[in-house]
Amino acid sequence: MATLGDIGVAAAFNLLSAFVFFIAFAVLRLQPFNDRVYFPKWYLKGLRTSPASSGAFVRKFVNLDFRSYLKFLNWMPEALKMPELELVDHAGLDSAVYLRIYLIGLKIFVPITIVAWAVLVPVNYTNKTLELQLKNVTSSNIDKLSISNIPLESDRFWTHIVMAYAFTFWTCFVLLKEYETVASMRLHFLASEKRRPDQFTVLVRNVPPDPDESVSETVEHFFLVNHPDTYLTNQVVCNANKLAKLVKQRKKKQNWLDYYQLKYSRNNAQRPIMKTGFLGLCGQKVDAIEHHEAEIKKLSKEIAEERERVKKDPKAIMPAAFVSFKSRWGAAVCAQTQQSRDPTSWLTEWAPEPCDVYWPNLPIPYVSLAIRRLIMAVAFFFLTFFFIIPIASVQALASIEGLEKVAPFLKPIIDMKFIKSVIQGILPGLALKLFLIFLPTILMIMAKFEGFTSKSSLERRAATRYYLFNLVNVFLGSIVAGSALEQLNAFIKQSANEIPRTIGVAVPLRATFFITYIMVDGWAGIAGEILMLKPLIIYHLKNFFLVKTEKDREEAMDPGSLGFNTGEPQIQLYFLLGLVYAAVTPALLPFIVIFFGLAYVVFRHQIINVYNQEYESAAAFWPDVHGRIIIALLISQVALIGLLTSKKAAQSTPFLIALVVLTIWFYTLCKARYEPAFVRYPLQEAMMKDTLERAREPNLNLKPYLQNAYIHPVFKEEDEEDEFDFKSENESVLVPTKRQSRRSTPAPSRISGASSPSLPPEVVPEHPERAS
Amino acid sequence: MATLGDIGVAAAFNLLSAFVFFIAFAVLRLQPFNDRVYFPKWYLKGLRTSPASSGAFVRKFVNLDFRSYLKFLNWMPEALKMPELELVDHAGLDSAVYLRIYLIGLKIFVPITIVAWAVLVPVNYTNKTLELQLKNVTSSNIDKLSISNIPLESDRFWTHIVMAYAFTFWTCFVLLKEYETVASMRLHFLASEKRRPDQFTVLVRNVPPDPDESVSETVEHFFLVNHPDTYLTNQVVCNANKLAKLVKQRKKKQNWLDYYQLKYSRNNAQRPIMKTGFLGLCGQKVDAIEHHEAEIKKLSKEIAEERERVKKDPKAIMPAAFVSFKSRWGAAVCAQTQQSRDPTSWLTEWAPEPCDVYWPNLPIPYVSLAIRRLIMAVAFFFLTFFFIIPIASVQALASIEGLEKVAPFLKPIIDMKFIKSVIQGILPGLALKLFLIFLPTILMIMAKFEGFTSKSSLERRAATRYYLFNLVNVFLGSIVAGSALEQLNAFIKQSANEIPRTIGVAVPLRATFFITYIMVDGWAGIAGEILMLKPLIIYHLKNFFLVKTEKDREEAMDPGSLGFNTGEPQIQLYFLLGLVYAAVTPALLPFIVIFFGLAYVVFRHQIINVYNQEYESAAAFWPDVHGRIIIALLISQVALIGLLTSKKAAQSTPFLIALVVLTIWFYTLCKARYEPAFVRYPLQEAMMKDTLERAREPNLNLKPYLQNAYIHPVFKEEDEEDEFDFKSENESVLVPTKRQSRRSTPAPSRISGASSPSLPPEVVPEHPERAS
Repeated sequence: MATLGDIGVAAAFNLLSAFVFFIAFAVLRLQPFNDRVYFPKWYLKGLRTSPASSGAFVRKFVNLDFRSYLKFLNWMPEALKMPELELVDHAGLDSAVYLRIYLIGLKIFVPITIVAWAVLVPVNYTNKTLELQLKNVTSSNIDKLSISNIPLESDRFWTHIVMAYAFTFWTCFVLLKEYETVASMRLHFLASEKRRPDQFTVLVRNVPPDPDESVSETVEHFFLVNHPDTYLTNQVVCNANKLAKLVKQRKKKQNWLDYYQLKYSRNNAQRPIMKTGFLGLCGQKVDAIEHHEAEIKKLSKEIAEERERVKKDPKAIMPAAFVSFKSRWGAAVCAQTQQSRDPTSWLTEWAPEPCDVYWPNLPIPYVSLAIRRLIMAVAFFFLTFFFIIPIASVQALASIEGLEKVAPFLKPIIDMKFIKSVIQGILPGLALKLFLIFLPTILMIMAKFEGFTSKSSLERRAATRYYLFNLVNVFLGSIVAGSALEQLNAFIKQSANEIPRTIGVAVPLRATFFITYIMVDGWAGIAGEILMLKPLIIYHLKNFFLVKTEKDREEAMDPGSLGFNTGEPQIQLYFLLGLVYAAVTPALLPFIVIFFGLAYVVFRHQIINVYNQEYESAAAFWPDVHGRIIIALLISQVALIGLLTSKKAAQSTPFLIALVVLTIWFYTLCKARYEPAFVRYPLQEAMMKDTLERAREPNLNLKPYLQNAYIHPVFKEEDEEDEFDFKSENESVLVPTKRQSRRSTPAPSRISGASSPSLPPEVVPEHPERAS
Repeated sequence: MATLGDIGVAAAFNLLSAFVFFIAFAVLRLQPFNDRVYFPKWYLKGLRTSPASSGAFVRKFVNLDFRSYLKFLNWMPEALKMPELELVDHAGLDSAVYLRIYLIGLKIFVPITIVAWAVLVPVNYTNKTLELQLKNVTSSNIDKLSISNIPLESDRFWTHIVMAYAFTFWTCFVLLKEYETVASMRLHFLASEKRRPDQFTVLVRNVPPDPDESVSETVEHFFLVNHPDTYLTNQVVCNANKLAKLVKQRKKKQNWLDYYQLKYSRNNAQRPIMKTGFLGLCGQKVDAIEHHEAEIKKLSKEIAEERERVKKDPKAIMPAAFVSFKSRWGAAVCAQTQQSRDPTSWLTEWAPEPCDVYWPNLPIPYVSLAIRRLIMAVAFFFLTFFFIIPIASVQALASIEGLEKVAPFLKPIIDMKFIKSVIQGILPGLALKLFLIFLPTILMIMAKFEGFTSKSSLERRAATRYYLFNLVNVFLGSIVAGSALEQLNAFIKQSANEIPRTIGVAVPLRATFFITYIMVDGWAGIAGEILMLKPLIIYHLKNFFLVKTEKDREEAMDPGSLGFNTGEPQIQLYFLLGLVYAAVTPALLPFIVIFFGLAYVVFRHQIINVYNQEYESAAAFWPDVHGRIIIALLISQVALIGLLTSKKAAQSTPFLIALVVLTIWFYTLCKARYEPAFVRYPLQEAMMKDTLERAREPNLNLKPYLQNAYIHPVFKEEDEEDEFDFKSENESVLVPTKRQSRRSTPAPSRISGASSPSLPPEVVPEHPERAS
């Protein structure tokens, strides 16, 4: 086991390499030709133009001002300078709150580190247990600082219990304050925001089929009857998945055509040639430009046909609609209430922001959703616990013998010494590495299959699963040492009071491993994040080969986004490690603090200068973040119970069990207190905004504003001028019913069918807006 | 272990004793002087008058018509004759749906019994495993019919797995259908009901304090702003708990006074004398009538003072109010939405029916609710697992030696042989028995402490706890044989895959015990229920000693009510036994079927003729019933997994785990599909009823109807004429604000304070009703 000196050397080395990364970053970002890689957000906002447009030729590419290199770390204070309110304005609430996760890490762990070093380290260090044991086997300086150094049945364990209470209360206090702040930030953000279509709109799913009326008419009638004072308009959802696919194909072909045309324009002597078969490797040789032109023409025709079909065919109209209301109050009421007797029809929920809508999932019917969730739950269980099986078989196949067996003709090549060593060295690890790289994508596909309707909820679900996977395979996998499958087997065979002990005993032993993990994965990962090597290379490649116009250059930028589904679960791992080791091995805490500090600065810089968030969910992810930190707390408490039991300080267990109960109670308390702010929209707020808006703009006509807010992007981007309006025929106020039979839904149809005038004035008041 | 013959004899004996009970019941119920004991519901409904009022003297008391005795079982078909719709009308939906629990038992178990006997019994019986073992130790005829008779690793276990699937699917199918029926019955009931105040009313709790306004004004302003179109009126809740206590005391004294006056009127020679001390056992001797008259006078004065105080003192007004709306739609919207930014203030929920309100809990503030729930959760845990400790110590105390030690002066009495044997025979068991008798009361007190606001929710919570207690202490306690504490210890020390095995192995061994349990507790209990011995005796005692007028006689009737909190958990035990033993020991099933059949008839009779339900919750308990049957299914599956593992049919485990997953999935499906019908009130329904009502009664003025619907019963019963109206000063439409400072809640106060006219017409439309 590593001594304190070893760890110190490793830490110095890792800090140094992070420093090198920062210097490389500082040099690269000052070069004007990298400007679009390191400051894309400002370009996208239109606040920065290419530095290449003015100055001497060399200066266009290389920064020759040597003074700027001297201040190579000044991006750090710059990143910290922007106040939070401006940050919300600049990058959105999601990003600003995401940064608070790192900040919360600092808030929790800085005081804990100080207290732990002031109290626990002396208490642990002034024992001689480990010195009495064989020196060269288990003892190290790190262990001397840890709980391992305290003899069995010592009264000193009370210090650890008191500290566990103190750490839990401090963490809960920080979490409570933070939840309160984020909730009020969210409400403030929603309240102070300018008018947005999603404030007025509700997504209605599972509209029951009606033989006599179209979906749009059914929706209109239903809401005119049940929300007579507030209903404004609706936009039905159509299944344009095929159309979107065709449009995507055409874009791809267009891209190739551009490429070939560029090639031809550079070398006029030779028309570019391509093969039509698989990946351009086989098949007939044709003129590439002509071929693509023909393909595009064909696709355009297909697209036109498909568009007509989507517009006309009632089967393409899905039983879902975006229903807009005259006021935020009306939308808030509709989103929070149950509409119909049958709780699986007329399902209403807040409409996601238009850019947050995940269109391909809107047409999924409710019935299949339940089945999809079951399938994915089972699939995720197998993914977590059995993923090692296919990988092991791939590894077996990828070994020398496996390859020789499957493809004997490769034998002469494989037997070459260099190739052999490459295969032996890389291939087995490669399968696992590839799997881990693709895991977030797999989880994202699973979330999509489950049918969530907004990108933000997709990312949240994928993040939850990634967190669970990490918890089982990284944390428990490292502690219990073995694949998840072996663990599962071990845990099933152990009794309920042995499991905490197994974990608790292993925790202090794995401290040095996790310290190294934090340095290699955490520190280096963050330093790598700021360099943005991949976007840098891709941008320059694209810039060199493809870019012709300024617009092309803009498209070559790849700012990326926060990636909540991968980033947040990784941070949670550090919370878990910090809390678990706080009372056990305080020596680990400074590494955690450095991680959170570095990460905060780096991500603040990235958010200000680089990332371009696709959507805005107004920090809807916070309850997840909060819940996972509580889970980390609970795990740390259970591990401490196990550890102390094994140290024969068993009379302390009831105190720690009380702590577990209190922590769970704290969670339920916070859930009741703050979670509604992330799920519902209080009527008081809605009413206030409505009233203010009406007072300011008494003659506002919302209908044109909301009419086409939720149109499938394929129609929007395809041709803005030829606007795709389903709703034109519904312009008139009174929608005549086409219903012929009344057998299926007698009562509501009677009300809607009889039309308003026969009812007393309260039921259907005048709608001044609708008349306009 | 009992043979089939033994069981048969026991069954015959128990059936016979049930039969004797029925005969006794048939004889007793035909006697006119018992009429009020066996048909109180009809008296309460005013549909039956005392048979004593006409006819010959003897006939008043004894039925001499011998023909009627011949048809002594004809109450059974009579009980079954009333159609369900009439039953709903006669006894309420709660009672009608409660009966469906027994019916569901028949629906599930009759087909299962037939299939189990047709398939499983032959499969089990045609083995010789038990014959090969020592005959006199474990084998019995019952066991020959059970799964114990199948050899290890036999392929015949596949039959049991297939049957487990069949039983699960059948149970789920019945549950699904039943959930659907009950949900639609509930919605139909709510829809077809005549106008009730709770349809228009919402209970608002945690009204935030306002230094400048009274609670009533704050509520009025808030709802006029946030529900301008629908708000009608409000009634604040006042803390009349002390007043109610005083009134109760006075009533009690009055009762004693009546008693003494009656005594005096019968024996004019002697003024009744009583002692003022503890329980009338010690203290000064006084004239009883004079003493009570003085006491009542004193109390009356106190009551008058307290009433004044409650009316005047702002501290007696709680931050809670019943808010009524102009339409059901408005109430439905308000009950389902979040009102304010702070999710712990302005909490809205459906108001319970006026008779369902549990008044003493309304004043509890929200903050203390969370703490109360935590305390009760911990208390219930200890009650379930550690209740045996105080009882054991009481038992130790109640033993001969214990008594002699505590009270040596009793030694001569205790040493008497008769007393000694009584103490030894009865006292130890008495402590446990007394605890079990008082358990439902204890659980009810716990539920009250938790702060539920309606009687129905109190009963539901107490039922859940009683169910858990039964599950742990009766079912698991009988299976694992040992106190709950020992079990807890055993289960904690066992591994996750040993626990099902422990249960599974014990299940077939305990079959005969549970058969006896079903006969003694189930059959005899139900037969005893119909005799109503306790009410019978008490009624006749009261009738003899106290009754002077017809009104007294009415008060002497004690029809009781269904007692959901004790009845339902007991039925659930039979569901659990039936499902657990269905695939293991089918011989137990006929006993379950007989139980459900008998219970159905008896309870139908009781509901029609006896019970008088205090409140109507419109079958709000059904989700609990459904959930517990699913839990029983899951337990049966886990037990089967354990049993088959111990039978070394381990390759079958994955199939049964799949069944467990499917069952859990079915539960979530049902929850999403049907539970909303029991929690929320669909807007469509509300709108339909509103529209119909307005069309029928266009000039209806709801305000007087709702004005005093939710007044504390103490004010209502005390003096109806002197009506307690807080609201008189709020009659005017425009409530002038008394607010002086605007620092605390600037925005809403600005809107409400500025009053309507300055706002555009959409914000505050005219309120035609309010003007009236």
